[in-house]
Amino acid sequence: MPQIELTSNDLQEILTFTTALARQAGDLILRGSEAILASGDVDEKKNSVDLVTEYDVKVEELVKGELNKKYPGFQFIGEESYAAGSRPPLTDLPTFCVDPIDGTTNFVHGFPHVAVSIGLIYNKRPVLGVIYNPFLDQLFTGAKDLGSYLTLRGQTPHRLPLTRPRPLPSLSQALIGIECGSDRSASIMHVKAEAYRKLAGNPAEGVEGGRMAHSLRALGTAALEFCMVAQGGLDIYWEIGCWPWDVCAGSIIAQEAGGMVAGSPSSPLDNDVNEAVLTGRKYIVIRPIGDSPTEKGVDAQKRLIKDFYDTVGDFTPR
Amino acid sequence: MPQIELTSNDLQEILTFTTALARQAGDLILRGSEAILASGDVDEKKNSVDLVTEYDVKVEELVKGELNKKYPGFQFIGEESYAAGSRPPLTDLPTFCVDPIDGTTNFVHGFPHVAVSIGLIYNKRPVLGVIYNPFLDQLFTGAKDLGSYLTLRGQTPHRLPLTRPRPLPSLSQALIGIECGSDRSASIMHVKAEAYRKLAGNPAEGVEGGRMAHSLRALGTAALEFCMVAQGGLDIYWEIGCWPWDVCAGSIIAQEAGGMVAGSPSSPLDNDVNEAVLTGRKYIVIRPIGDSPTEKGVDAQKRLIKDFYDTVGDFTPR
Repeated sequence: MPQIELTSNDLQEILTFTTALARQAGDLILRGSEAILASGDVDEKKNSVDLVTEYDVKVEELVKGELNKKYPGFQFIGEESYAAGSRPPLTDLPTFCVDPIDGTTNFVHGFPHVAVSIGLIYNKRPVLGVIYNPFLDQLFTGAKDLGSYLTLRGQTPHRLPLTRPRPLPSLSQALIGIECGSDRSASIMHVKAEAYRKLAGNPAEGVEGGRMAHSLRALGTAALEFCMVAQGGLDIYWEIGCWPWDVCAGSIIAQEAGGMVAGSPSSPLDNDVNEAVLTGRKYIVIRPIGDSPTEKGVDAQKRLIKDFYDTVGDFTPR
Repeated sequence: MPQIELTSNDLQEILTFTTALARQAGDLILRGSEAILASGDVDEKKNSVDLVTEYDVKVEELVKGELNKKYPGFQFIGEESYAAGSRPPLTDLPTFCVDPIDGTTNFVHGFPHVAVSIGLIYNKRPVLGVIYNPFLDQLFTGAKDLGSYLTLRGQTPHRLPLTRPRPLPSLSQALIGIECGSDRSASIMHVKAEAYRKLAGNPAEGVEGGRMAHSLRALGTAALEFCMVAQGGLDIYWEIGCWPWDVCAGSIIAQEAGGMVAGSPSSPLDNDVNEAVLTGRKYIVIRPIGDSPTEKGVDAQKRLIKDFYDTVGDFTPR
């Protein structure tokens, strides 16, 4: 199989193409949302779960089809094809990694945090990401060595993060994204509830090991929460149990904004989203942190990731 | 003191005025956000907490001043004036109830869920609400007997809820807004973490009393979460510890969309946001629910609020 080389110019061209494609997918998502929200009591035979799957498949087919026409030599990993049993191994070929609808629970409910997420893996690492939320017209893009951007409601693109990276002395100054996730067994929920209690709790008022974070947020979409960290609007986002297509595009967008992405508590803190991290189903991302007189930003990122994992512990997703 | 009578025409006129005022306040919030996010490392002497207070006061002064000029006979309750010691008792006069910046933690961090919330109390109940998030250009409005609306990015206003009210058989189908809040003592955090565990946990996998809600969300702004319930994007939102200005505008917007608002677990489920509920610092709101063949929507709302409170328990905020 011939090697495909990707230059910065190639990435720029792919970014242009995938951005237009993401907007097209966004239109389809909006149509799907209308169909699902209208289905509640008008078509009892077709329930909303069927409709979600239908639109998940439709969006993936659109994206996959267009990408395959334009880039026939590239591989493709998508949530729906993966679920259907097509699980290509990660090769050295450029590979698109796509979540057609990130935030499907939000999609079903009409909670307007839903996005199509198109990532590109090259040399087994994310190198390009386009994430588009059609409900709020938020477009996040990023590519290796080209920076990352937010384009809001047709405005001029803003380079990410939106402001100069501020310091972040400790978790007590942090706004943290944490999700209850889909695994709701007693053992997992115990860990999650303990994480909730310790991250938010005040050690001076009896919460042993409490970090008293500024606050906790949950948007219900890994892709957009990675983008919020890239933007600087969340300081940290932590997720266990999601998949490469949930985080591929978001990882490079966050990294290009100066964020650090890591895997499980035992993975190295070298900001290398290699195959082990990408497929490891444990993710943490922290926003860019400015250097302080006493600590480099990158050292603060590592220290806070370690402190975060010391606080919340670890578990293995099913 | 002369009685002031408010007709539907008056409410419509006040709605027009307060909507324009909210957009003006939104511009000021955007300027404040830029100042705060830029302050991180350029002006060490003025920290972001001071800047937040400064802009909270600025926005409240703008809103209070304009309302007072236009409606000199009306009373005013605002977060900042209340905190400064001005605590007028609730009278029979029309009373504006304003949160200049709802979601101040988000405001500090640049998490784009921040709103100005302008409510009007008449006969000691919310009768009008305008909530505007300038970051996402989301405008929510509502007034007694006039319905409630979302105006998104200059589009035509959409009547709320955005779709015909769907059924909601149980909490297991619900998307629920729940916040860790500002009281982080051990006893409160125990209740909150237990609520988190039980709402999300699967009773079939060992979580005793678990309701296995679809999922949990946290935006960090009571005003916008009431609006999300009015829109139908969240099914339930629960909050303990916030204040009348956090919920006044949101209550009427939710009620006019067909939602039900209640106070503490012991308060009657009659959707009457009277003085006791408005000032009681315990709030729950549930979206409009369609009638099913076996249960009226309003009965489903009451049943689910009871089930929710049975699940999460109760505590008294400081």
